Amino acid sequence: MSDTLFESVDIARLSTEAADFETRLDALLAWEGVSDANVQARVEEIISAVKARGDAALIEFSNRFDRLTAASMSELTLDAGRLEQAFRGLSEEQRDALAQAAERIRLYHERQKPTSWSYTEADGSVLGQQVTPLDRAGIYVPGGKAAYPSSVLMNAIPAHVAGVREIVMVVPTPDGVLNELVLAAAHLAGVDRVFTIGGAQAIAAMAYGTASVPRVDKIVGPGNIYVATAKRAVFGQVGIDMIAGPSEILVVSDGGTDPEWLAMDLFSQAEHDEDAQALLVSWDESHLAEVEAAIARLLPTLERHEIVRQSLARRGALILCRDRDEAVTLINRIAPEHLELSMADPEALLPQVRHAGAIFMGRYTAEALGDYCAGPNHVLPTSGTARFSSPLGVYDFQKRSSIIHCSESGASTLGRVASVLARGESLTAHARSAEYRIKD
Amino acid sequence: MSDTLFESVDIARLSTEAADFETRLDALLAWEGVSDANVQARVEEIISAVKARGDAALIEFSNRFDRLTAASMSELTLDAGRLEQAFRGLSEEQRDALAQAAERIRLYHERQKPTSWSYTEADGSVLGQQVTPLDRAGIYVPGGKAAYPSSVLMNAIPAHVAGVREIVMVVPTPDGVLNELVLAAAHLAGVDRVFTIGGAQAIAAMAYGTASVPRVDKIVGPGNIYVATAKRAVFGQVGIDMIAGPSEILVVSDGGTDPEWLAMDLFSQAEHDEDAQALLVSWDESHLAEVEAAIARLLPTLERHEIVRQSLARRGALILCRDRDEAVTLINRIAPEHLELSMADPEALLPQVRHAGAIFMGRYTAEALGDYCAGPNHVLPTSGTARFSSPLGVYDFQKRSSIIHCSESGASTLGRVASVLARGESLTAHARSAEYRIKD
Repeated sequence: MSDTLFESVDIARLSTEAADFETRLDALLAWEGVSDANVQARVEEIISAVKARGDAALIEFSNRFDRLTAASMSELTLDAGRLEQAFRGLSEEQRDALAQAAERIRLYHERQKPTSWSYTEADGSVLGQQVTPLDRAGIYVPGGKAAYPSSVLMNAIPAHVAGVREIVMVVPTPDGVLNELVLAAAHLAGVDRVFTIGGAQAIAAMAYGTASVPRVDKIVGPGNIYVATAKRAVFGQVGIDMIAGPSEILVVSDGGTDPEWLAMDLFSQAEHDEDAQALLVSWDESHLAEVEAAIARLLPTLERHEIVRQSLARRGALILCRDRDEAVTLINRIAPEHLELSMADPEALLPQVRHAGAIFMGRYTAEALGDYCAGPNHVLPTSGTARFSSPLGVYDFQKRSSIIHCSESGASTLGRVASVLARGESLTAHARSAEYRIKD
Repeated sequence: MSDTLFESVDIARLSTEAADFETRLDALLAWEGVSDANVQARVEEIISAVKARGDAALIEFSNRFDRLTAASMSELTLDAGRLEQAFRGLSEEQRDALAQAAERIRLYHERQKPTSWSYTEADGSVLGQQVTPLDRAGIYVPGGKAAYPSSVLMNAIPAHVAGVREIVMVVPTPDGVLNELVLAAAHLAGVDRVFTIGGAQAIAAMAYGTASVPRVDKIVGPGNIYVATAKRAVFGQVGIDMIAGPSEILVVSDGGTDPEWLAMDLFSQAEHDEDAQALLVSWDESHLAEVEAAIARLLPTLERHEIVRQSLARRGALILCRDRDEAVTLINRIAPEHLELSMADPEALLPQVRHAGAIFMGRYTAEALGDYCAGPNHVLPTSGTARFSSPLGVYDFQKRSSIIHCSESGASTLGRVASVLARGESLTAHARSAEYRIKD
């Protein structure tokens, strides 16, 4: 690709044929959300303080970090009435859009609900699995510029569908600023209580409980490095979702999609923040050049053009590959959070896609549709973690218990096997416990 | 309960009616597997060394910590042939018992396999969820006295059933001692390769890969504090299972089970190690006294009586409660790893059990049967984490991708909703990307 015409666009151009391709791709993908020792130490201090002093520590930290003047936790608590009030206060257009999105998200997640099952063996023994919801979930919502009502829907609705008894939300309010859309979304999504606290102190409060903030069973939702470090620290005390890295998209185009559509799809990823990653793969070299031209043309028209320019320069790339097969190899190598298959026959490719958070199929399925209202969750595994993890879902708010009910005869048969194996492990009380159930 | 007759048994006797019950129960249940700063620092050093120097570091650490004299990784590698040889070398009784257990575990886990699904909306848009296995799983197996072949089956078989392409196992061999039963179990369970390495260095090798040890997508299996700390550190780079605490059982008895059976069931938990926890709850006071007498009588006959004595004294308890309802409250409060419902009608209680790793129903279902061969997994959430997590299962070795395929008309409808919400979040490139797909 020539870059003389569009020298204003600073975005990497890679070709799988280049000798240094692997190295350059590795460098582009590299991301490690490391918390340095300083962050670690501060987070540990905050957690200890909240464990030791509860609400008092929460109030102190909130006043200090968010520049508030709260004297009691009641000033940092919003009830269901306040959330409903926020919803009523929206414009009709916003209220309708939010309600439509919430309903579609609910419908999709209903399909994820598993059922308990069991089966009976010939000797009358019963084996099974019982599925139950968490008692209480905690949702972290970032404050300030990254406060997204859509994220509230995406985090809380699966919990609600799962049957979680109580959904608690925390959202910091720097300088006391409340986001009405966020509160309205909490109302729609079935959030029971909101605390206007944030940071590591909010994570600690939900993990250990204070007089005002109830201990939850699992904490989900994105946050800054302090929040991420705190989540990692309390993992085990409570469940947590994945620790998210910057958002990314991999668009694969067969050359038939309008280059301006693709440029905007890439921008919609890049506008999140300077670390966001937008990658386009195609085996059509002239198409890549057209998208590059569209990027150059449209970039100046964006509200967030400074952020987009930086993220494209730092982490974006236009990647020329040989053919569709090589595109599939790249997909599975990258394991993208968002995968857009902008092509005539995405179904043909789908069975070969082993690792991706969400797959947007065909030319009409812009990622933005999935981000807001298609139905599937927009909380997705980032930084290649789609290799081993899944979108946030109903399954994150449920757990399973194994059921074993041996009949007298079943216990006798199994007792013999267990006895041999237990003695092989020198666990003789195990063996004797099983042997009591053997019939002579 | 009088304790004059059985003064030789040192085990707590609690009653829910006592004023200090909650405090004493809290103290009994308290467990935090903290790694101190020293362990943390050593683990980080080991991880850095393995990342930087790969195999060379692995060999050094293995020689140092396991007192070996390996000169190359080939001396720390076992191939499939060596595993099969171990299996062939077992006694027929052991081979049969292991094979029966493996087959039952496989059959149970087959039932856990989810299916991909999708549905088509009125406007032709398709939404769905595609389930795929991990490419590669890594299984940690402790060496030395805690090397359990049953754990190999329980960790590897779900991965195999899930369709994982390659299963790698690591097991340290202190002083060069190999456990043939462990290798035989690996053969049966479908393990592809074994490395005789352990500790934080083995976790680092599987998380980042070396020239010899392939990078895996998820690491499962129990280990000591160094292993647990290393797993926590690499979480995010790879998936991990829960970080396990000491094993525990809560037995609820209606008074109708032979006291000696119950004593042995408690012993089978307590014999694991000094931190293991065995609790018995009943509303029948004289029955509790009988179990206590059986404990006193049988304890001296145990091979591992010293360990059992210590764990009963430190963490065991006989708990008198008022009635069945209060027993249910205790179950859900404790969220036990193992729950034994030793009663006439456990089914009546089951729907009220919200939190438990595995539930052993009726008088015949000793936990030991589930530990080895009933079928369900014995890797279970400990220390109350059954509140939010599940037994190890096929689902731990698979992940889901969301599928969204909007029709032209579907994209137009959703585009309008997405546009309103995106503009509400000031993400205007998102909005414009959606708006391109709106038909006029």
